[in-house]
Amino acid sequence: MEKHTVDPWAWGKNTNSVQAVEVKNVTGTLYCSGQVALDANGIPSEADMRSQLLQTIANLEHLISESGYDCKNIVRLNVYTTSTQEFFMTCLDVYVPFLQKHSIQQATTLLEVKGLFAALTVELEATVVK
Amino acid sequence: MEKHTVDPWAWGKNTNSVQAVEVKNVTGTLYCSGQVALDANGIPSEADMRSQLLQTIANLEHLISESGYDCKNIVRLNVYTTSTQEFFMTCLDVYVPFLQKHSIQQATTLLEVKGLFAALTVELEATVVK
Amino acid sequence: MEKHTVDPWAWGKNTNSVQAVEVKNVTGTLYCSGQVALDANGIPSEADMRSQLLQTIANLEHLISESGYDCKNIVRLNVYTTSTQEFFMTCLDVYVPFLQKHSIQQATTLLEVKGLFAALTVELEATVVK
Repeated sequence: MEKHTVDPWAWGKNTNSVQAVEVKNVTGTLYCSGQVALDANGIPSEADMRSQLLQTIANLEHLISESGYDCKNIVRLNVYTTSTQEFFMTCLDVYVPFLQKHSIQQATTLLEVKGLFAALTVELEATVVK
Repeated sequence: MEKHTVDPWAWGKNTNSVQAVEVKNVTGTLYCSGQVALDANGIPSEADMRSQLLQTIANLEHLISESGYDCKNIVRLNVYTTSTQEFFMTCLDVYVPFLQKHSIQQATTLLEVKGLFAALTVELEATVVK
Repeated sequence: MEKHTVDPWAWGKNTNSVQAVEVKNVTGTLYCSGQVALDANGIPSEADMRSQLLQTIANLEHLISESGYDCKNIVRLNVYTTSTQEFFMTCLDVYVPFLQKHSIQQATTLLEVKGLFAALTVELEATVVK
């Protein structure tokens, strides 16, 4: 698979995504369900958003790895949160290192939604290629 | 097309989705607009969510069939609703049989949104492959 | 790439989308981050939704063009807005000519969300093929 990122504006360097990702000669596509902070028994977290994001990222990493894919090849990673303010105030020191650790360069849309399942406050929806 | 599902956690068996779907050797991809409870004249329903979901599913089945695709091969099915509580309380006896009838094993993200068009309360957005 | 649109219902002619888009023999896929009304310095607009949509569309056109793709080949274009009412009341005379100018026939889901980044009120998320 060939991957090519596009960032036409200088301000793109200050974001945690690229404006577009092109892929060619894809041999497999992995569509992931939105991952949230469920523990090993499937119980949804009631912790603060930052703690939930730590669990969510661990779950997403495990899912992608178990599927035989690499986080580096996430092409679309959408973030759904019940509070964008809380996400930007409390979660970037968790979210950014996750992207850097895997050298993820992905398209992202971030939406503030009315609610997620139970007391969940943040969800990550990934599409990955190989 | 080859399709492979991934469910790394035991609790996955109790959900109405799989955690990830991998597809390879895809020969066609069908991107569907979000389907809602519009009648044959395009009039949006004002009925309760459960009734709307019945119409929405009928519309989605018709759309996929007319497109020459099979519901069984839905890879991503997102659910957008104005009330997750109402969805889980009143709609599962409609939603689950739809998945079972077609043996659909799909990635899903469920979001509670502020609103949909007119008085609509539930929407299904599908991506299908062959 | 071959593209084929499906509109099983007569009312489909009155919408600004098609109900489904099928693509085959795709040689490249472009996943775009949600585009919003940022200016050349990355500053988010505080203007009204209609003005924001004009900037958003200009940004999306630039992004797709810089990526070597054609707006005509957008297969999925999702619209996220903080007010569907305001979108339909004030934005159609901007949105529809954009679709017509490029002969875009795309699948669309429109969601009213609780919020977007800063004071942004409308966002366009595109997937394009070649």
